[in-house]
Amino acid sequence: MDAAKAVIARRVGSVDGLLDLAAADMAGVDAIIIDRMQSPVSVIPALADHIIHAGGKRLRPLLTVVAARLAGGRGDSGPKLAAAVEFIHTATLLHDDVVDGSGLRRGKVAAHLIWGAPASVLVGDFLFARAFELMVETGSMRAMEILSQAARVIAEGEVLQLTRAHDVNLSRDTYLEIISAKTAALFAAAAEAGAVAAGAGGAQCAALRTYGRNLGLAFQLSDDALDYGGSTETLGKNAGDDFREGKATLPLLIAIARTGPRERDFWERVIGRQDQAEGDFRRARELIAAVGALDATLDLAADYADGAKAALATFPAGAARDGLEALADFAVSRRA
Amino acid sequence: MDAAKAVIARRVGSVDGLLDLAAADMAGVDAIIIDRMQSPVSVIPALADHIIHAGGKRLRPLLTVVAARLAGGRGDSGPKLAAAVEFIHTATLLHDDVVDGSGLRRGKVAAHLIWGAPASVLVGDFLFARAFELMVETGSMRAMEILSQAARVIAEGEVLQLTRAHDVNLSRDTYLEIISAKTAALFAAAAEAGAVAAGAGGAQCAALRTYGRNLGLAFQLSDDALDYGGSTETLGKNAGDDFREGKATLPLLIAIARTGPRERDFWERVIGRQDQAEGDFRRARELIAAVGALDATLDLAADYADGAKAALATFPAGAARDGLEALADFAVSRRA
Repeated sequence: MDAAKAVIARRVGSVDGLLDLAAADMAGVDAIIIDRMQSPVSVIPALADHIIHAGGKRLRPLLTVVAARLAGGRGDSGPKLAAAVEFIHTATLLHDDVVDGSGLRRGKVAAHLIWGAPASVLVGDFLFARAFELMVETGSMRAMEILSQAARVIAEGEVLQLTRAHDVNLSRDTYLEIISAKTAALFAAAAEAGAVAAGAGGAQCAALRTYGRNLGLAFQLSDDALDYGGSTETLGKNAGDDFREGKATLPLLIAIARTGPRERDFWERVIGRQDQAEGDFRRARELIAAVGALDATLDLAADYADGAKAALATFPAGAARDGLEALADFAVSRRA
Repeated sequence: MDAAKAVIARRVGSVDGLLDLAAADMAGVDAIIIDRMQSPVSVIPALADHIIHAGGKRLRPLLTVVAARLAGGRGDSGPKLAAAVEFIHTATLLHDDVVDGSGLRRGKVAAHLIWGAPASVLVGDFLFARAFELMVETGSMRAMEILSQAARVIAEGEVLQLTRAHDVNLSRDTYLEIISAKTAALFAAAAEAGAVAAGAGGAQCAALRTYGRNLGLAFQLSDDALDYGGSTETLGKNAGDDFREGKATLPLLIAIARTGPRERDFWERVIGRQDQAEGDFRRARELIAAVGALDATLDLAADYADGAKAALATFPAGAARDGLEALADFAVSRRA
């Protein structure tokens, strides 16, 4: 166990290597993002800048540019597709925060609380359209197909989550279906779009898609665990947000299953009816910890991280592959 | 004047001719719309069906298929692009109704009042993404470019309107800029996309774009006038919606300019501060009528309708051109 931890620590260290490797490409992506979020309608760049420069990890565009590099590409459409991916992601964040009524995003006050929900909805639409304009510029119909499908699947996942949000009987499979759609689909598309930009063949595109999907699931499950295990300072959002919004995430669903009839009334009240009082979050956290639901969630996340790494076997060893492997480890070892 | 009215009446009659001409294509468009609004997430087709089958006029997809016909096209991508256009339009309607808090849409209760604002936002996103999936299927990068630009311009227009909504000092030019973006851009793109689907040359594409833009402005200005001149029964939305939302539309802006300092306090209160009381809408309607602001708005609409017809001069006479000319007359003669 200590040896395994040491391996992970070394690998997490090499996320820095990944960032070094991608630094020039990512600077290009950032320049495109800044250039293309401009509009004569001044609220648009102001609001977009607020969320885009709030210190997001830029994981998805990073995936696109590193996937392009791993697939051996030297084309210049990678950064544009990466910027398009980030715009789609940002648009969904703006809409999600309106939908969820979230107060914090990336450690800053959510945009809809400053500019209002209508502006957040419409600037999301602007960024979404801009993403497609960028894709048009690359001339890649295949990238357009991958990303338009991903955008549609994300919306389906969000609606499914919305309709099942407070359902204490949600199955693990349906939960995984939700996060596959709302989170993993864009990770998968981001990585595959990079491969497409590099002119990679079908097998490499599929492998990078599999990597992205598994990485997305690992990140989301790890996020779900952090909402019950982390602190507001390290998360950049409020710990317990999922709980307060009555979202049935995996740690909660596992705890509900494992605590059985004894705690049924508690879960029905706080999640099913969202009737929460002082101390309920603490109690939920204790129950989740007591039955090992956090560990079970993180174990599943680790399985997906392994799946992500396995998908890279087809690529030659080197800095790009090392970096993506380290990123998979980082997904499940991070504290924020 | 009576002679002119008779000409218009005859032409309006031939909107029926246009609908006959396009009937088969529009049946195809409808089949695509129904097929592509489906999703395993049942809320999506339920909500989409509610708004899509609420008796909208389907003007924009009609433009696409008739433009394709006028430009001599026999390709089969017209109906798919037309369905994509209608999806983009429907997505913006769903988001607009959330943004404006509208109670009625196409004579039915607005979707967000039945399924909630979050579902309306997300189903809008779904339809928007579906529109791009449909475009990908046509393989036309140019159509993709035209429609992604239009979608972005619409969002810009909506945000501009949002930030200037209650501004009694809004200039006529800025108002026209707003409706050029939020309404006319999609009419222009719909017509041009039809020309592109037909494989038309640059001049024909540009002519149909000009037709669409002018038609869109004529329709929007006519709509603005109807909000003060029509009745709820014939409008399919609440007469006075714009007024109650404090939207500075052209009839109001003209009335504000023409009633001068005398009525300044009234306009500042009801539009600027949105502090409205019983009877204010009636008074606004009376002031607007008294200074001829409705007629001035409709005159401008008629100018744009003329501009639309003039743009068709480059095309051969025939049923398609007659129909589009009739549609321009219909835009400014309708009562709902």
